[in-house]
Amino acid sequence: MNDQINITLPDGAVRNYPKGTTGLEIAKSISEGLARKVLAAEVNGEVWDLTRPIDDDAAFKLLTFDDAGGKNTFWHSSAHLMAEAIEAQFPGVKFWVGPPVDNGFYYDIDLGDRKMNEEDLAAIEKKMAELAKQSNPYVRKPISKADAVQYFTEKGDEYKLDLLENLPDGEITFYTQGGFTDLCRGPHIPNTGFIKAIKLTNIAGAYWKGSEQNKMLTRVYGVTFPKKEQLDEYLALLEEAKKRDHRKLGKELEIYTMDDDVGPGLIMWLPNGTVIIEELEKLAKETENEAGYKRVVTPHIAKENMYKTSGHLPYYADSMYPPMEMEGEKYYLRSMNCPHHHKIFDALPKSYRDLPYRIAEYGTVYRYEQSGELFGLMRVRCLHMNDAHIYCTKEQFGDEFRAVNEMYLKYFKIFGVEKYVMRLSLHSPEKLGIKYVNEPELWKETEEMVRNVLIESGIPFIEVQDEAAFYGPKIDVQIYSVIGREFTLATNQVDFSQGRSFKLHYTTEENKVETPLIIHRAPLGTHERFIGFLLEHYAGKLPVWLAPVQVKVLPISDKFLDYAKEVAAELKKADIRVAIDDRNEKIGKKIRDTELQKVPYMLVVGEKEMNEGKVSIRRQGKGDTGTQSIAEFSAAVAEEIKERRGESLPA
Amino acid sequence: MNDQINITLPDGAVRNYPKGTTGLEIAKSISEGLARKVLAAEVNGEVWDLTRPIDDDAAFKLLTFDDAGGKNTFWHSSAHLMAEAIEAQFPGVKFWVGPPVDNGFYYDIDLGDRKMNEEDLAAIEKKMAELAKQSNPYVRKPISKADAVQYFTEKGDEYKLDLLENLPDGEITFYTQGGFTDLCRGPHIPNTGFIKAIKLTNIAGAYWKGSEQNKMLTRVYGVTFPKKEQLDEYLALLEEAKKRDHRKLGKELEIYTMDDDVGPGLIMWLPNGTVIIEELEKLAKETENEAGYKRVVTPHIAKENMYKTSGHLPYYADSMYPPMEMEGEKYYLRSMNCPHHHKIFDALPKSYRDLPYRIAEYGTVYRYEQSGELFGLMRVRCLHMNDAHIYCTKEQFGDEFRAVNEMYLKYFKIFGVEKYVMRLSLHSPEKLGIKYVNEPELWKETEEMVRNVLIESGIPFIEVQDEAAFYGPKIDVQIYSVIGREFTLATNQVDFSQGRSFKLHYTTEENKVETPLIIHRAPLGTHERFIGFLLEHYAGKLPVWLAPVQVKVLPISDKFLDYAKEVAAELKKADIRVAIDDRNEKIGKKIRDTELQKVPYMLVVGEKEMNEGKVSIRRQGKGDTGTQSIAEFSAAVAEEIKERRGESLPA
Repeated sequence: MNDQINITLPDGAVRNYPKGTTGLEIAKSISEGLARKVLAAEVNGEVWDLTRPIDDDAAFKLLTFDDAGGKNTFWHSSAHLMAEAIEAQFPGVKFWVGPPVDNGFYYDIDLGDRKMNEEDLAAIEKKMAELAKQSNPYVRKPISKADAVQYFTEKGDEYKLDLLENLPDGEITFYTQGGFTDLCRGPHIPNTGFIKAIKLTNIAGAYWKGSEQNKMLTRVYGVTFPKKEQLDEYLALLEEAKKRDHRKLGKELEIYTMDDDVGPGLIMWLPNGTVIIEELEKLAKETENEAGYKRVVTPHIAKENMYKTSGHLPYYADSMYPPMEMEGEKYYLRSMNCPHHHKIFDALPKSYRDLPYRIAEYGTVYRYEQSGELFGLMRVRCLHMNDAHIYCTKEQFGDEFRAVNEMYLKYFKIFGVEKYVMRLSLHSPEKLGIKYVNEPELWKETEEMVRNVLIESGIPFIEVQDEAAFYGPKIDVQIYSVIGREFTLATNQVDFSQGRSFKLHYTTEENKVETPLIIHRAPLGTHERFIGFLLEHYAGKLPVWLAPVQVKVLPISDKFLDYAKEVAAELKKADIRVAIDDRNEKIGKKIRDTELQKVPYMLVVGEKEMNEGKVSIRRQGKGDTGTQSIAEFSAAVAEEIKERRGESLPA
Repeated sequence: MNDQINITLPDGAVRNYPKGTTGLEIAKSISEGLARKVLAAEVNGEVWDLTRPIDDDAAFKLLTFDDAGGKNTFWHSSAHLMAEAIEAQFPGVKFWVGPPVDNGFYYDIDLGDRKMNEEDLAAIEKKMAELAKQSNPYVRKPISKADAVQYFTEKGDEYKLDLLENLPDGEITFYTQGGFTDLCRGPHIPNTGFIKAIKLTNIAGAYWKGSEQNKMLTRVYGVTFPKKEQLDEYLALLEEAKKRDHRKLGKELEIYTMDDDVGPGLIMWLPNGTVIIEELEKLAKETENEAGYKRVVTPHIAKENMYKTSGHLPYYADSMYPPMEMEGEKYYLRSMNCPHHHKIFDALPKSYRDLPYRIAEYGTVYRYEQSGELFGLMRVRCLHMNDAHIYCTKEQFGDEFRAVNEMYLKYFKIFGVEKYVMRLSLHSPEKLGIKYVNEPELWKETEEMVRNVLIESGIPFIEVQDEAAFYGPKIDVQIYSVIGREFTLATNQVDFSQGRSFKLHYTTEENKVETPLIIHRAPLGTHERFIGFLLEHYAGKLPVWLAPVQVKVLPISDKFLDYAKEVAAELKKADIRVAIDDRNEKIGKKIRDTELQKVPYMLVVGEKEMNEGKVSIRRQGKGDTGTQSIAEFSAAVAEEIKERRGESLPA
């Protein structure tokens, strides 16, 4: 009996195999077709080579390219394949590390005196393809540390010796495929034949161990796939993402600018960007007004003491701008709006009749991000946040939290966000009193409340341990743009701690004094990140209600300029943002330029239109869509704006 | 012939008098009635005693209590009268100085070991009235400095000796009325009999010469008038101003709050105040949109270098918050929005087709005001400014500047501001290159342009030398509340200098490169000061469009709560801000409380209203105004809001 093992599959089924059975053998016993796709196996939560014998009972899962573990293994093995090809082209080079990354893999290489260029990349790609076709197996070989040191000493490879130095004594592993052997923990895919499509994407410099004191190595990036079509799709997506890059669109559409004299990461919103901001704020205000929020306006600075009370100081000091010292006090630019809102709650006595007390502000906060981390609208130093705080009783919590989630969903619908995930971040009981407020009961209670609301609402969510805020559980909301890129939009947090720190109180119906629970929420995140997302999501072709210029009138010649003005005046009456292309240009050029500006509607007006009091309509990206009277067109567009229709969301 | 003098009156008429004629004699020669009212005379621009002989030809004007010079003389003489009365009550006290001030006069007194209280004030008032009735003349006596020093040395008065020490050698003057003699330059009114109404208003402490190092003196404030009714009016106005104090109303109506942990002068706007802010911004945005402005959003900080370019550093450094040092750079909270706006102008190349380029932002700025200077909403450290900058050509300047002035007038009409004055502040040619940009021609040209626009517009204005901004002439706009208090609302400035400093350019139709002129304007000033003004102006009874709660529904009992909710829901549909008084209170109390909250409309609903689907309307301050259907009332109020009617401006 003891030469048999029990293998538990993900669906709970238990199968019996001889001791020493490999993952690949298990796969084959399930389905030959599956076995051809399988890249690695997860054994008791650890990723293993498919060829490694399993000697004990285990929880078991097969990994394909669709699993994160499978993909990482595939790309890590591809890095080895690339190293083999590079060694063939550049004999004698030395290798540092070659990990998988978000979209592929890289290897850091010491080329000695040699250089590598685009042509070399093509040659390496070709060599990789050749080696891949040989279907060379990745062979795992346990070896003692001493033997490994001897191997690399003989080879004169100071890089691998450095890696070995930092490994504990005992058994380590080498992996060999074809003629290439590397010090490697593994795991790897069965053989190089799985790698069917290869693209080396970039050559960059990278300091050894990331330190400017060290030598600059050459980093080669690549991406591979098990199918040719997957690479084609990926390259098309890259191309599409480049076209949708919010920094490129932000410049072309005159959305925002930055300036050295103002400072890095400090966005200045140009008139076009400001139109989008105002439309988003209008939407937020309408939505929040309907949901019973009140609005407040608070300053951007406060004294040190307030941030000590809130706990931002000293723990969050690194992310804040340095203080301004004045009259013996330190003032800080705020990095959060909450403390100011707590002071508003506290300004007047509150009773149960005042709860839930919901206050909202598009609050500006300042955060110190390292210069190197700054990135377009995505990582900035000044943020306009769709912030609000809800102060409520425990009994009110469920309804309030549910209403907040529904507000998220309402927004997702407006913006055509079809894929989203909520991450419920929980505390870690071992870190109570260190990373988390030491209130085990309240943690349990609030985490349970949040989980229940999510389950009842049927919102997709995953649970993550040890990622809560210090004052309570939080939900990170992740949304996906139409091209599938993930954006962390905002958090929705429960707070049972700051109410106490700020000594916030309300009197109950029984005239007792209680501390309210607080919900921190920001469904639209920050203007900066959300507008960055929208530019990518819509590829700059904003829906009419958000478009800086909604309609452009294009007179065929100067002769029709007066009529164009008449049309524009009519549309302006209906609060439509309209412009006229009054340049002395051919109509073809006017249309092309306006297409590039991504104006949703173009109205071409000439002899016929003027005589009939009509306009010829072109919809951005759709071409000619017919003729209407000015009044008909105006009413239709006004309706489209009022309903915030998202028709322009491209397929 | 040389014992005759020529006296030129304000209307240009020249009269001939014997040499040595006094102002009073001239007054009598014109009209006995006038002579009874006259307090002093202006001789060649200097204010003289009426009893002082005139020996040479002179420009001459008689001064009454309606002239600033007459009023000051009256109050200065009253300070002497008060000193006489105090000396009678508190023999042996010593006097420092006793000047006229904005609303009356004071005297600083060293009481030795004694104290003065409210009862003493009443006794002093009584004594003053008694001495006034004696109509004692104020007698001017020229005396040498040496004799004066001897006089006060004998008296042992170190205060007057200190004053004498700082006077140049030569003839000085003593003034005596009744039993009181003072070192005084004069002038004074003819005799104490002119002082018919007396009110001592306050006792305060004041350090000698304003220095904390010195002894604390007692400062007694008073005010006097030539007629009893004038005092009554003044006291009534004081009472009214107290009722309208924006700090009192701001608290009662829950408009704003401040907090020690946030910092002094940093306003936090409560929900009610935020409603007013949002309505004002809506008005500004509508108005500016119609006038062709575009909106921008910019951060509140920038690097030191930007403020060196603008000239704010080092000259304005005292009024700015201290810098934040980061990554080897100094960042400042901005005290002005202009530099950021210049950067927006400069972000994209501009041609004559883009001009006038008008960009607006309700920009937040931070200014360091001394703690002691802070005052409610009037003097704060964080301001939200109705800012905009217009970049234009010289040819466009007149029209643009005129349009800005018309925008001011439009706002004045909406807010029922009937009295206003514009002060045109000009440069001083001697200070070119010191206080003013050294561009004599541009100063001449722009001052002329501004003056012409003001004259053409028929707007009342006065000219003031040496008060311009360093970059161009400016207009300070002063408005008066219904109770006649003056507020400096905003400035409207021409700037021919910053365009050059920031190297701003546009290409002309002839393809030449030019620097634009810039207009800085902020017709609604700052939210802080303007809302402070509105609270006083309307005595807290805001017009419906500005009122935080526009309608309150008062059910006669719980039985009608459902109907009250139905009424409220109907009004909310028409975007009317409505609340329900659902407390279990008598209707009389509900009405009284709502009156105190200054809600414009109250709707009383009971049996009859419910059965008929109607509401009984009470207008704030006017009582019952009849019954209407819900729909009729809703439509009427929506109309009143839309038109921003100012009916609630109290008489």
